[in-house]
Amino acid sequence: MKVNVGGILRDYRTVWMSGSSVFMINQPKIPHEFEIVELKDYRETARAISTMVVRGAGAIGATAGYALSQAAVLAPEKGFYDYVTEAEKAINATRPTAYDLFYATKRVSSVIMSSDGVDSARKNAVVEAQNIADGNASACKMIGMHGEKLMRDGMRVLTHCNAGWLAFVDWGSALSPVYAAKRNGKKVFVFADETRPRCQGAALTAWELGQEGVDHAVIADNASGHFMKRGEVDLVIVGADRIAANGDAANKIGTYEKAVLAHENGVPFYVAAPTSTIDLGCKSGDDIPIEERSENEVLNVVGWSDELRKVTSVRVAPKGSHARNPAFDVTPAKYISGIITEKGIVKARKRDICGLF
Amino acid sequence: MKVNVGGILRDYRTVWMSGSSVFMINQPKIPHEFEIVELKDYRETARAISTMVVRGAGAIGATAGYALSQAAVLAPEKGFYDYVTEAEKAINATRPTAYDLFYATKRVSSVIMSSDGVDSARKNAVVEAQNIADGNASACKMIGMHGEKLMRDGMRVLTHCNAGWLAFVDWGSALSPVYAAKRNGKKVFVFADETRPRCQGAALTAWELGQEGVDHAVIADNASGHFMKRGEVDLVIVGADRIAANGDAANKIGTYEKAVLAHENGVPFYVAAPTSTIDLGCKSGDDIPIEERSENEVLNVVGWSDELRKVTSVRVAPKGSHARNPAFDVTPAKYISGIITEKGIVKARKRDICGLF
Repeated sequence: MKVNVGGILRDYRTVWMSGSSVFMINQPKIPHEFEIVELKDYRETARAISTMVVRGAGAIGATAGYALSQAAVLAPEKGFYDYVTEAEKAINATRPTAYDLFYATKRVSSVIMSSDGVDSARKNAVVEAQNIADGNASACKMIGMHGEKLMRDGMRVLTHCNAGWLAFVDWGSALSPVYAAKRNGKKVFVFADETRPRCQGAALTAWELGQEGVDHAVIADNASGHFMKRGEVDLVIVGADRIAANGDAANKIGTYEKAVLAHENGVPFYVAAPTSTIDLGCKSGDDIPIEERSENEVLNVVGWSDELRKVTSVRVAPKGSHARNPAFDVTPAKYISGIITEKGIVKARKRDICGLF
Repeated sequence: MKVNVGGILRDYRTVWMSGSSVFMINQPKIPHEFEIVELKDYRETARAISTMVVRGAGAIGATAGYALSQAAVLAPEKGFYDYVTEAEKAINATRPTAYDLFYATKRVSSVIMSSDGVDSARKNAVVEAQNIADGNASACKMIGMHGEKLMRDGMRVLTHCNAGWLAFVDWGSALSPVYAAKRNGKKVFVFADETRPRCQGAALTAWELGQEGVDHAVIADNASGHFMKRGEVDLVIVGADRIAANGDAANKIGTYEKAVLAHENGVPFYVAAPTSTIDLGCKSGDDIPIEERSENEVLNVVGWSDELRKVTSVRVAPKGSHARNPAFDVTPAKYISGIITEKGIVKARKRDICGLF
């Protein structure tokens, strides 16, 4: 997507590979600064995933694929396969919930293992990682095309967290229908839940929407129910980090709350995700591991200080108080009106989900 | 309640009057600094209400009562009644939702108007304002006594915003049963929703609980549904800013979400409030005015900067993005298991509520 950086409009992807380096937008600095970071080996790239320099289901997947191909490129001739296996283990250990990560490392690793010799494995790994990233970008574009059918002119959409192009390689999942509608001349208004603790809604979604010229308002996560109850929300679209075979969907903490409130208020609630996010190995949401992150994300807030002229952290809770910080929750399928995939919109139930494969 | 300030434990009320000055704990500085501010006339005191130096239903009420008695004390002999009427109007204009405010100014003003002459009016106004504050403190203590019956040993309670003693003159509403249970030797654990945008949960509730030695965890507002769904919450207790005759209750934004989620997960949901919060003039929640505050509260977060060594504000959203900021929402009576008042626990329905008066 096009980003206006320093007055110059140019095309960016969220993450890409060049030579043996992975490049990505430094997301914790958005919206205050726009910076590209270069990661020179898989360890640096894996660290960028765990520290959330890159985040978002599809972007994590593409990055993980690139990271493993980096390992293949940089692995010594001797002990090549051990090195790659070690790398895969390290990459898989970065984030437990997002299924695209495992999907990507599995694809790259099976290409490596089935290649004829080390040289061919290195080359094929890079090609496969690129295929995953390109596939993610085109799947997201198709999600926009299918999802746009849900968008009437003048629609007021609520979204949670960031499932825009920063969360994927390009276009995004939940925001892709919004972008498609906007480009097709429909008027759209977006309520962006700020999405504590890391405020990806306030920081990333609002920034993306601003870049694309989409009317929006940031709201406290607490306010979404109020606006739904008052009839000010026509549609909810969120992303997903892992979808189980029965349609239960793990996504950013708070998604479950929005789904229950949408259900209670008769507001359609859609999950947008490429099929790479669907894990048929998970029978239901109970099988999805939920990452618990550092309590510091809750006890503190990161933002721009005018006084310090930089991004900094302030503490909101007293010293001595602790926090719990589950990063995701699971929305049961019964609250989901449909899943928007690159292959079309399906009901959140096993029969329809299995039919996608 | 006792507060540990600089290593010395002493009794504080949230707000009090001495001579013609009103004194209060400077709440935006909690938990990082403990400061008492002195407000020398009703205009300063009214400003402290609107800028939320003092906040919370009962504390706003007591402060409003004191402010009007300040006006009575300081009004010139000539034009006394015009001055007082003007003051009442200004005080009533500070915050539209919290009913205790109107309850208090009405009580003080009717004492002034029914007094025999200016001197007597001044004296009676001060006595009545003190009665309101004392009445609030003792009502909250009774709320604790009644509410404690709901508390089993080992209970895990979720609360939203701050309805502790900082929100009242003393004891608090939602937290009063927690304090009573703790003092009676019951083990209690509290999930404190951080309560964006102003983080009264993370800042004030966590601080109060820390002072009282109550085990607690701060959570993002997004996480409460997740913990309820996982069976980790036994009881929800919140405060209220105005309760309509039919039992609908206005409280801090996000309360409605918690109520719907508690209902969906079979978790009892109680509202704790003195009868001074009940507005029989409001037939239902539709009649309760909802304050919309500055978007800056959402676009920014206030907290302690270690680097600046002071409380400061950081911006989380991009420049150019706007926010919506309703400060309260209305929870329909059907989601409320009961209302804990100083006169006992009643069902959230007209018959029972009217029976309290």
